[in-house]
Amino acid sequence: MQMHPNKDTQLCMSLSARPGNFGLRFHNHLYEQLGLNFYYKAFSSQDLPGAIGGIRALGIRGCGVSMPFKEAAIALVDELDDSVQAIDSLNTIVNTDGHLKAYNTDYIAIEQLLKKHAVPKDSTFALRGSGGMAKAVASALRDGGYANGVIVARNATAGQTLARNLGYEWQAELAGLRPRMLINVTPIGMTGGPEAQALAFDADAVDAADTVFDVVAIPAETPLILRGRAEGKQVITGLEVIAIQALEQFVLYTGVRPTPEQFEKAVAFARA
Amino acid sequence: MQMHPNKDTQLCMSLSARPGNFGLRFHNHLYEQLGLNFYYKAFSSQDLPGAIGGIRALGIRGCGVSMPFKEAAIALVDELDDSVQAIDSLNTIVNTDGHLKAYNTDYIAIEQLLKKHAVPKDSTFALRGSGGMAKAVASALRDGGYANGVIVARNATAGQTLARNLGYEWQAELAGLRPRMLINVTPIGMTGGPEAQALAFDADAVDAADTVFDVVAIPAETPLILRGRAEGKQVITGLEVIAIQALEQFVLYTGVRPTPEQFEKAVAFARA
Repeated sequence: MQMHPNKDTQLCMSLSARPGNFGLRFHNHLYEQLGLNFYYKAFSSQDLPGAIGGIRALGIRGCGVSMPFKEAAIALVDELDDSVQAIDSLNTIVNTDGHLKAYNTDYIAIEQLLKKHAVPKDSTFALRGSGGMAKAVASALRDGGYANGVIVARNATAGQTLARNLGYEWQAELAGLRPRMLINVTPIGMTGGPEAQALAFDADAVDAADTVFDVVAIPAETPLILRGRAEGKQVITGLEVIAIQALEQFVLYTGVRPTPEQFEKAVAFARA
Repeated sequence: MQMHPNKDTQLCMSLSARPGNFGLRFHNHLYEQLGLNFYYKAFSSQDLPGAIGGIRALGIRGCGVSMPFKEAAIALVDELDDSVQAIDSLNTIVNTDGHLKAYNTDYIAIEQLLKKHAVPKDSTFALRGSGGMAKAVASALRDGGYANGVIVARNATAGQTLARNLGYEWQAELAGLRPRMLINVTPIGMTGGPEAQALAFDADAVDAADTVFDVVAIPAETPLILRGRAEGKQVITGLEVIAIQALEQFVLYTGVRPTPEQFEKAVAFARA
């Protein structure tokens, strides 16, 4: 169904330093498929308070928030969902008649993926990374009952802080550890980055694990995921994370949950 | 051509107390026909400074401004076109890298229509009305060299002020005057209003005139226009005003001037 915009069309948007196409293609495709009178627009801004003020003043229904605004935006909304309070970082704002409630659908997506892939809760794991997304993933693991983990981070201050706050160990390198689940939350393996061809963990560690989880979404098939697949491991990809977090945003904005088939088609369309 | 939105899509918008469909249908139709990567969204707001701040912060390219914001918005922009300075009222904001320049394309449209219809400059005229749009029309007449006019307005204060500022006479009623051009800038004849069936000027005066100009756009065929047509007068309609003012906004926002055929089709589409 092709909607013609009219005066009742609702706007949703994203706010980031460098907008991409995935979110707007995902949302607009589903609006069209489901016949919803919405339009999704990607914005960049240098003025976060002005942008949030504009969301209020113009009645923009929802906003996806990316780097570098995820922490600073917290002070500008009216209510925080548990998913934001868990990690002091938001990625979604829902505007209901001028009341702005913040969510973190990255955290929600990680929670869902651990359940969907039925990763045993007594699995040992190593999570590599110490940035904002590492905090979201580690918090979802902690809140999901995964107690036996180590944070691997070369940045000792950030790594130790993250580990201590969540009750995990910290190590600068994986060294001889061989956990059941390996999770990459660094840019290693990301297209266009300096380590695009690198494995985020030693090949020996990958081969010894049961589950390999890479948060890098571009490409979906990172060196780590490719190695995991080749070795017959259970894999969880960054594409699954960005797709599910976008789906949960869609549900929050529209109140409509697409079918699994509609969701899969929207992901395929958004990536094309 | 059907554009798929992407991260480079530019947003234009309208801001009014009660959004309509004409502008958004006109602009979106032309974007599609001309293959321009723009999208037009109608907004209402209770917070003018927040809305203008949002235009700046989000890099929204252009904004059509309607009642009740046309005067108050002047203090919130960076530069005024002559068309705004002439009447202390804007209806268009163009955002170029954060610099907001205001225009009044109603004034520009009136100027163009007087030329297009080749109304003789020595025509006597009576303009009925004393509100914001009356100011735009009377100013365009004055600046266009139409010196022999009378402002007809029951509101003596507003009518006298408008007349005095522009060097015209004022009368509460047309009475025995029989000017060559009659111009209605009141809601008389407007669909849904209390005087929807009324003639804005006495039938005798219409029959004695050469040109009948009605700023009311809904319907385009007001009682005044219908009477003028029936009597073989030259008529200028409110539909022409809103169409040309929208066209000039389109040119300001996109830098592209549609052909006359594209313009006519967009007007027909926007009215449907």
